[in-house]
Amino acid sequence: MNFIDGLNFDEKGLLPAIIQDERSGRVLTLCYMTKEALSKTIEEKKIYVFRRSKGRIMLKGESSGCVQTVKKMFVDCADNSLLFMVEQTRAACHEGYFSCYFREIDDKGEVVISEQRLFDPKEVYP
Amino acid sequence: MNFIDGLNFDEKGLLPAIIQDERSGRVLTLCYMTKEALSKTIEEKKIYVFRRSKGRIMLKGESSGCVQTVKKMFVDCADNSLLFMVEQTRAACHEGYFSCYFREIDDKGEVVISEQRLFDPKEVYP
Repeated sequence: MNFIDGLNFDEKGLLPAIIQDERSGRVLTLCYMTKEALSKTIEEKKIYVFRRSKGRIMLKGESSGCVQTVKKMFVDCADNSLLFMVEQTRAACHEGYFSCYFREIDDKGEVVISEQRLFDPKEVYP
Repeated sequence: MNFIDGLNFDEKGLLPAIIQDERSGRVLTLCYMTKEALSKTIEEKKIYVFRRSKGRIMLKGESSGCVQTVKKMFVDCADNSLLFMVEQTRAACHEGYFSCYFREIDDKGEVVISEQRLFDPKEVYP
């Protein structure tokens, strides 16, 4: 995995990674990976992220079971970010929506919920 | 555009924005916007970015003509990033590819060019 050495992790050791659902093409979330999180992601073919609020790497979906299985992986032209196409289990967003981008900004600048909730967060994160 | 006040711009005043081609679903690039770049993007319905190397906001495609026309706009669940669906003129990547994610990492960890070049950068950026 020589390409890892060429990646431009930032001063905190983080690299942004876009997660996209392979089947629907929906963009699910933007996360941040350390070199360790990226290595585990490649090794296990499941997305691992650096959770800034907890200060540690975590399997995405660790507590909810909503894991993301890696199907394809791309690096951008400047080695500044990654794109993963995944198979999403249930829903990506901790709010219970398939994508974290479930709020659309309409022409008037109003925030509109543009997809259906798939689970109630209270039942998944007790 | 009240939602702008709720966005979590970072300590440098930047917010990441994922740019996706609406028609094909291809993720094109990840860029960074200041509040000013975002305001101009909304006003003109063309993507404006903060070009860190130049220290100023620029119309995406300013020199190449490869502008991105905004069709839809979404904000993530934590107000930490944006997703724009756009109509891409010609190609998004300064290397001449439709997407900046034209390099796939294969199972052996090798970098493979996974799409066709649409223009020769030398002819577009003299």
